[in-house]
Amino acid sequence: MSSGVAEVTRVVNAFAEAWNRHDMNAFAELFAEDAEFVNVVGIWWKGRSAIKGAHELTHQTMFKSSRLSMQEVAVRFPTPDIAIARCRWTLEGHVSPEGGALPARNGILVNTLQKLGGAWRIIDSQNTDIVEGVLSRPQ
Amino acid sequence: MSSGVAEVTRVVNAFAEAWNRHDMNAFAELFAEDAEFVNVVGIWWKGRSAIKGAHELTHQTMFKSSRLSMQEVAVRFPTPDIAIARCRWTLEGHVSPEGGALPARNGILVNTLQKLGGAWRIIDSQNTDIVEGVLSRPQ
Repeated sequence: MSSGVAEVTRVVNAFAEAWNRHDMNAFAELFAEDAEFVNVVGIWWKGRSAIKGAHELTHQTMFKSSRLSMQEVAVRFPTPDIAIARCRWTLEGHVSPEGGALPARNGILVNTLQKLGGAWRIIDSQNTDIVEGVLSRPQ
Repeated sequence: MSSGVAEVTRVVNAFAEAWNRHDMNAFAELFAEDAEFVNVVGIWWKGRSAIKGAHELTHQTMFKSSRLSMQEVAVRFPTPDIAIARCRWTLEGHVSPEGGALPARNGILVNTLQKLGGAWRIIDSQNTDIVEGVLSRPQ
């Protein structure tokens, strides 16, 4: 594995590690100041502060005891300082607004990263739920 | 509007124009040879040929008479030759596998583009449905 791939993969894994510690300070540190993030229901957050605040809220509630794991991290470098890192993920242990256990779910996350001041930061994220057995939605 | 923003916005609008003509040759031409695309249900296509084939299939069926419109195209340039273009979209006129009319739906598409040989090509796309009134899924 090239050092670039290893460095970017480390950031993607740190996303899950911060999530699983529910440490939103560490989570926010992975993002550039002006990063954007679209979650699985199409909420569009602009800026690290908005990304952090939204995740603090869900990690006090539905994601409080959730566990995220990343699989198949695939990294491309369109230029030496830009990386597109896509991975599949599984989320377990999340609950409904009423506190009831929910089944594990899977999705695909794309993170675009930029090497800024020698360190890779996420400048953009978009997340999509995997719905098995259909070509599109709604069906 | 800077010329870069105008050029990238033109590619995003061409995505919808090719979709609405159901011209998958023109659609595929917008993408780089090794582009990747994740659709709203998390299907991960690798390469222009796979992206084209999948869209040919859906444009012969559920999307045959569909109409896509882009709104709020927002373009950022992390470097001069890389653009992140995010937009909201509305799709109308699509049908179920049984051919029944379906209500309009909305989503958010992120396209990452690279200026290659003087022209902007899409090197990565990921699409997410908007689900109103929830913070995440399933609720």
